[in-house]
Amino acid sequence: MLGERPIGVFDSGIGGLTVLRALLEALPGEQFLYLGDTARLPYGTKTAATVERYALQAGSELVRRGIKCLVVACNTASSAALPMLRRHFAPLPVQGVIEPGAAAAVAASRGGRIGVLATEATVRSGAYEQAIHALRPDARVTSIAATLFVALAEEGWTDGEVAMLTARRYLEELRAASGGIDTLVLGCTHFPPFMPLFRELLPPDCAIVDSAQTTAAAVRAALPAARRTAPGPLRLLATDGLERFARVGGHFLGHALDPAQIERVDLA
Amino acid sequence: MLGERPIGVFDSGIGGLTVLRALLEALPGEQFLYLGDTARLPYGTKTAATVERYALQAGSELVRRGIKCLVVACNTASSAALPMLRRHFAPLPVQGVIEPGAAAAVAASRGGRIGVLATEATVRSGAYEQAIHALRPDARVTSIAATLFVALAEEGWTDGEVAMLTARRYLEELRAASGGIDTLVLGCTHFPPFMPLFRELLPPDCAIVDSAQTTAAAVRAALPAARRTAPGPLRLLATDGLERFARVGGHFLGHALDPAQIERVDLA
Repeated sequence: MLGERPIGVFDSGIGGLTVLRALLEALPGEQFLYLGDTARLPYGTKTAATVERYALQAGSELVRRGIKCLVVACNTASSAALPMLRRHFAPLPVQGVIEPGAAAAVAASRGGRIGVLATEATVRSGAYEQAIHALRPDARVTSIAATLFVALAEEGWTDGEVAMLTARRYLEELRAASGGIDTLVLGCTHFPPFMPLFRELLPPDCAIVDSAQTTAAAVRAALPAARRTAPGPLRLLATDGLERFARVGGHFLGHALDPAQIERVDLA
Repeated sequence: MLGERPIGVFDSGIGGLTVLRALLEALPGEQFLYLGDTARLPYGTKTAATVERYALQAGSELVRRGIKCLVVACNTASSAALPMLRRHFAPLPVQGVIEPGAAAAVAASRGGRIGVLATEATVRSGAYEQAIHALRPDARVTSIAATLFVALAEEGWTDGEVAMLTARRYLEELRAASGGIDTLVLGCTHFPPFMPLFRELLPPDCAIVDSAQTTAAAVRAALPAARRTAPGPLRLLATDGLERFARVGGHFLGHALDPAQIERVDLA
């Protein structure tokens, strides 16, 4: 039965666990199969062609195991590979995080002055500009590559002086480029853990949005109502470093992970 | 003629260019072929088995193109894969950076209290402890994973407040774990650009060593005297992101690079 299959979710590593967390809350009757491509992370400093190839391999692994929907819980992969993944896996529903993030930004923004912090690859793609302008053509969108947050998140340095100075430096760069924003989009699934720093550094009337909640809502809207029996345990796959994945990933998912519950897979 | 072949050098990305720079100075009559595995960097957060596989693929690509010596200009790959690479490519000389780094540390250390900043994978391997103890059994070696420097170097943030605070935090961790050192080893080829910060933060009588110079000396000692005709242009290969490789790599090599002089290769 198609309805009994899990929802497949993938990311370059652990950042997508912030999206999985929102999915688990929004869709409590569903089963999930998560894949983190930790052997090749980060995606955000790589070219579109390479990210596209990696995303196809990750998606194929999940599809091979039987899923009813594919969630690309990575902004870089969504920006580089979503049309290709949709064509390749049709008629399977494939949901990215950029369009939901853009929708959240447009809903939150009063004056249409939107700033995006993302990876180098996502910024280069122009995907947020395109998705926001499709909803609000007069929006002024300024995107800044904030690469270092990925490493800070992977290191677990999500608060403290280094994270604060890094946030200040990127926000200053964004302010200089934009002349001021009324909404900040966290355009990378590694960035939500830094939300308290952005909140502290930005004016109180500046909205901050990430795509986790709106992505979960989009997935719920696209699927027929799930059976409401208790789902089985969460299944996690990673291409490398299960111990590290469990240790750092627990912070992103919101509860502790055991390396024994993660299966190693090889995509190459 | 074997002597006319280039020396092959590889790293996960651009860090190994600090070693290439020392090699170019020490061996001005030689030709070099450098490969940066930028599609899969960093290696330092990955497991030994994965790094070993990547190193074998990188080495094989260089050997296939014809080299007379292989230099593993990456501490993580040296710590995980050197014995395997030596067996696999025998009788080709294969030179890593850990043993030269350990030799430099032992030569510089007066009291044998040696601190190592390296990647997570290099620290986990215990390779520096082993190599230093082989030369000086009574040395006290303390190794700390300083993962974030790789991302800072790749971002080009090698000075300024964030780099300074990061250096202070890792050195404080090292001081707390060791009780004080007389020699610091930069156990990752991404770290030499931070040398001025370490110099500023450490006592003046603490030596700081990296393995670039001693690795170049070891390669020179292992090879017959090179022909002293002018070598051809430097050949560079990368698995992804040629524009980025040229832009950031130029700082590591010490002179500007043109993306057009870098060839893209696929190792997978």
